[in-house]
Amino acid sequence: MMARALSLAERGAYTTRPNPMVGCVIARGDEVVGEGWHQRKGGPHAEVFALQAAGEQARGATAYVTLEPCAHTGNTGPCADALIAAGVSRVVAAMRDPFPQVDGAGFDRLHAAGVTVEHDLMQAQARRLNRGYLSRIERGRPWLRVKLATSIDGRTAMSNGDSKWISGDAARDDVQRWRARSGAILTGSGTVLADDPQLTVRFAQPTDFVAPLRVVLDPGLATIARGRIREGDAPTLYLHAPDVKVPKGLSAQHAAVPMRDGRLDLDAVLKLLAGQGVNEVQVEAGATLAGAFLSAGLVDELLLYVAPVLLGDRARPLFEGLSIDSMAQRLHLHIVETRRIGDDVRVLLQPENGA
Amino acid sequence: MMARALSLAERGAYTTRPNPMVGCVIARGDEVVGEGWHQRKGGPHAEVFALQAAGEQARGATAYVTLEPCAHTGNTGPCADALIAAGVSRVVAAMRDPFPQVDGAGFDRLHAAGVTVEHDLMQAQARRLNRGYLSRIERGRPWLRVKLATSIDGRTAMSNGDSKWISGDAARDDVQRWRARSGAILTGSGTVLADDPQLTVRFAQPTDFVAPLRVVLDPGLATIARGRIREGDAPTLYLHAPDVKVPKGLSAQHAAVPMRDGRLDLDAVLKLLAGQGVNEVQVEAGATLAGAFLSAGLVDELLLYVAPVLLGDRARPLFEGLSIDSMAQRLHLHIVETRRIGDDVRVLLQPENGA
Repeated sequence: MMARALSLAERGAYTTRPNPMVGCVIARGDEVVGEGWHQRKGGPHAEVFALQAAGEQARGATAYVTLEPCAHTGNTGPCADALIAAGVSRVVAAMRDPFPQVDGAGFDRLHAAGVTVEHDLMQAQARRLNRGYLSRIERGRPWLRVKLATSIDGRTAMSNGDSKWISGDAARDDVQRWRARSGAILTGSGTVLADDPQLTVRFAQPTDFVAPLRVVLDPGLATIARGRIREGDAPTLYLHAPDVKVPKGLSAQHAAVPMRDGRLDLDAVLKLLAGQGVNEVQVEAGATLAGAFLSAGLVDELLLYVAPVLLGDRARPLFEGLSIDSMAQRLHLHIVETRRIGDDVRVLLQPENGA
Repeated sequence: MMARALSLAERGAYTTRPNPMVGCVIARGDEVVGEGWHQRKGGPHAEVFALQAAGEQARGATAYVTLEPCAHTGNTGPCADALIAAGVSRVVAAMRDPFPQVDGAGFDRLHAAGVTVEHDLMQAQARRLNRGYLSRIERGRPWLRVKLATSIDGRTAMSNGDSKWISGDAARDDVQRWRARSGAILTGSGTVLADDPQLTVRFAQPTDFVAPLRVVLDPGLATIARGRIREGDAPTLYLHAPDVKVPKGLSAQHAAVPMRDGRLDLDAVLKLLAGQGVNEVQVEAGATLAGAFLSAGLVDELLLYVAPVLLGDRARPLFEGLSIDSMAQRLHLHIVETRRIGDDVRVLLQPENGA
């Protein structure tokens, strides 16, 4: 039942932001009598959909929810109260919600009303599902994913900067799904100038999603007048150095970020994005910026599309500036998943000792 | 039945060299009445084992063989005659044997004796199984596999040459199986000096194998007095430039190979090894020699162990000297198989437009 609830929750991956994904299954023994998932901020929570579907059958039933039911009134009333009012006798939650206005209060309220409460069933899966939301609430910064397309010899572009196209069509389609679940897609001014990406979500099939914020790290605001990144139906935010003169009449969103070591302070960048409700950031940039995030220990996840081509030792590396001089200094990761995507292989990795 | 025969054939992978692997299943309808595989040069062929097991039941049965039965007398009598004598009424072969003394003569002899002959069932799988033997017979050179251990950023060693150990224990165990099926393991004098490998087969469990020839490309015979490559229970062959003075009393095998473009002529190296009955060569060398084989278009198969570590952009590349300057010049490969081996990923690739 919980596995089903987690699967339902994930249907909201492209739309619930900044809210967490939540799924709910209401069951009587082995029989599912209602199910639902949170679809969109401001819309009903998963429990409400599931209770509606269950109707009178909710009385005496068990509700499986992937996150602690809320105890506060936001855009909707507290789900804990709705479960109590419907006569649910037992609530099984995959995890506590660390959101300050919940954080155990939902369980307390259910318990006080005589509902049996169990939690932490499939907690690891539930935490993984909402790793972005949890990062923002618990660490005050978004979950950071670096997406890179690389050749089998670890090169991301030719020495002249040409990187079109290392990976195949299937991989480029797959990237759209990872973009759609991101609250922000982040790049650097160098990539804007070299590759001129649009960084919008472009699904082959009509798919509902909330357009991710496009973020350009551009200390000197060198790229505000150029690039396809200003086109398309998604907001763009330029982050620049504090001492830069912002041109009058600049219509794009922009914000100053402190400098550190000659570049924008990446910690401050992430803190700013968390403040805007961004759960997951997907970095789509060159080796320099990707290397800077990695060196700063800010990479939570590496999404690699490895194409079966060789670009040779004169081509550009995967990461620049890692300052590794001996085998003992090598960076360890672990492979979360590998999958064939068309002619390429997608490898999802996480740094060890990381988040 | 043919799939079973192919699986039986592969049991001889470590021992049949220079002979091909062959499996045989004798069946009456759905019932297997005998099976066998070729185990060792000089020993009985697959058909003989299978006929022995089948006994009188071979009469009127069908024999499934992965390679055309032989028509000539070598260490053993012709298998075609044995099948005829046992009264087999139908022979299904996966492929014709291109060996000059067979090459259709086995089929002809069976046919002349009134046996129904069918062939090319699962031919692709049968060709893949014996790609080494077929390469030697049809192209006059061994099948060449380059084995490399690389980091996820495509690096094989630190800038100081340290490469111990990029991949994990499971990957290093797995390499033993690929070594054991190779007729020769080839390296360069640079690797002997830098890494001092032994290049013997060392199985964790007792396993029968024929020790592959160790081959060192050493134009100046600089390494003949050093290195663990002289140790262990396997022959070592040094290939050197024609004008080098061979020290008196050198006990190791050695042979001169013509030079081309300042290095040993790699075509000549492979031709020499084919002449010694080597079906598959496994190259375990550094980026320079691996790159030279690749640039020469002589690589049939790339066996990559990709470890989830980053070594940084100062570390050594996968291949040197590929002379790729634009995306249009990139080398295309295709992925034959990917598999998790412990913490690493094994990727088997073949160059496109290759063998």
